[in-house]
Amino acid sequence: MKELDFLNIIKKHIGSDFIGDDCAYLKDLGIVVSQDSLAEDIHFRLDWCSPYQLGYKAVTVNISDILASGSEPMYITIGLSLPASADENFIDEFYKGAKSALRGAKIIGGDITGSDKVYISITAIGLAKGRKISSRKNAKEGYAVIVSKDAFEAFGKSSAGLKELMNGGNNQSLIKAHLEPVLDEEFSRNISCCIKEDYAMMDTSDGLADALYKIAEASNATIDTLEFDGIFGAEDYRLVAVVPEDFLANMKDFVRIGTVLQQEDYVLKIGTKKYYKYDELGLYNHFEEKI
Amino acid sequence: MKELDFLNIIKKHIGSDFIGDDCAYLKDLGIVVSQDSLAEDIHFRLDWCSPYQLGYKAVTVNISDILASGSEPMYITIGLSLPASADENFIDEFYKGAKSALRGAKIIGGDITGSDKVYISITAIGLAKGRKISSRKNAKEGYAVIVSKDAFEAFGKSSAGLKELMNGGNNQSLIKAHLEPVLDEEFSRNISCCIKEDYAMMDTSDGLADALYKIAEASNATIDTLEFDGIFGAEDYRLVAVVPEDFLANMKDFVRIGTVLQQEDYVLKIGTKKYYKYDELGLYNHFEEKI
Repeated sequence: MKELDFLNIIKKHIGSDFIGDDCAYLKDLGIVVSQDSLAEDIHFRLDWCSPYQLGYKAVTVNISDILASGSEPMYITIGLSLPASADENFIDEFYKGAKSALRGAKIIGGDITGSDKVYISITAIGLAKGRKISSRKNAKEGYAVIVSKDAFEAFGKSSAGLKELMNGGNNQSLIKAHLEPVLDEEFSRNISCCIKEDYAMMDTSDGLADALYKIAEASNATIDTLEFDGIFGAEDYRLVAVVPEDFLANMKDFVRIGTVLQQEDYVLKIGTKKYYKYDELGLYNHFEEKI
Repeated sequence: MKELDFLNIIKKHIGSDFIGDDCAYLKDLGIVVSQDSLAEDIHFRLDWCSPYQLGYKAVTVNISDILASGSEPMYITIGLSLPASADENFIDEFYKGAKSALRGAKIIGGDITGSDKVYISITAIGLAKGRKISSRKNAKEGYAVIVSKDAFEAFGKSSAGLKELMNGGNNQSLIKAHLEPVLDEEFSRNISCCIKEDYAMMDTSDGLADALYKIAEASNATIDTLEFDGIFGAEDYRLVAVVPEDFLANMKDFVRIGTVLQQEDYVLKIGTKKYYKYDELGLYNHFEEKI
């Protein structure tokens, strides 16, 4: 895959202030901004989801990045490209689904254009006021790695749902987990509204293991976590946070899954297995990278 | 074409505060936001432009909306989707072109994903501070319709350049006008920094006649303009402003092309011809609408 080479070229062209996290934190404006795109037959198939579900998921994956930053979802713009075969019902249902996924944000605009396949690109803006904004660079030795209790039980279900769809299965609960992901809104707010110290938080769009690895790597640290079902799943869109141990006294409904160690020669330890390089995680990657 | 039906469905779902202009003006944040998408073989052809020119134009059409709002270009995010055939050189050149078109803005992020064809969706943020933000609803009887002197001489060249490309012509000056549009930065700033009264301003992405018609319609007024070469061209990405007559004393390097009349039964008069309905303008529309 070429994505890392591509990213390195792009990073060369972008101000380094804004490289590293899934959102750009614009301190002068007090906002965070994130853009995420979904292409038909790469990120979704129209025969697997309804237009409503597509609208829901497209907005959800963007709001997920905003929640991972710790900011409050405020505004989104939707760029929607449609083949000539798309009808009014498709757009109506897509927007109904999009609206149902806003978590308090407002749709403020965007555009609609023709294209060969359905293509969706959404930009989300979150408000930083009254929140502490996360960065994946902020993990420190001794910090606790936590997820919400609800997320702990959900990890892996989205991947299992995708397998159902690929294999013609009919487990509706798993399929729903893939097509209509639930977000950790309260978990995000409970941390970012209250925490004083710098902390790291990421969504698990590419899997919990992916997020853990990237936080450890960006923080020049090593993370040691429990091994459990679903840690290698993807598209859960849940959150994982790395916070000072003291802060746990303020939290409820969470599960501590690990601890930050000082930097070792390996980046991540899951159970007893050590991971020295990203590729060893064996994660599926459909050539999609945030800048 | 179905685009008006589509737009009506989308408008039903979006807060009416944000409908009407190409940018959303977020007063609480002091910014304007605009998103514009370009799809391969709909908005551009890869055999007609270099990756550098594509990057330049994709950013330019977005900055054009920011300038039309009267705000100051600040930040952009770039969503880029590429087929597997795209190589590192493509991305490097695309970003070089994008950076050359920033007009003072910074690239702060975005994403890169796989797709069947090249697809670009850019979101631009402009700063409202110290500027008066335009709205196409603000034309009033007696107001003057003006363009920059430079724009007056350029209208129509982009369309002529597109024809060159379609017909295998070789007029490089016209082709450049289409692939590398010049923007009215100074014209925008000279108005929005100094004007006290409400005013209307639009870019001429879909043609000067299109912009004039939309301003008149949104303002419940009629606009009467000169007829001249290029008024029906498209993709000029120049500006047209509708300002109080008194304000002209502050302006230089402009051409007055018309006047706002009280609302008549026709919306637009170009020379001696009256236009009662949008379709009578006979403008090319490739199914692309801003929300």
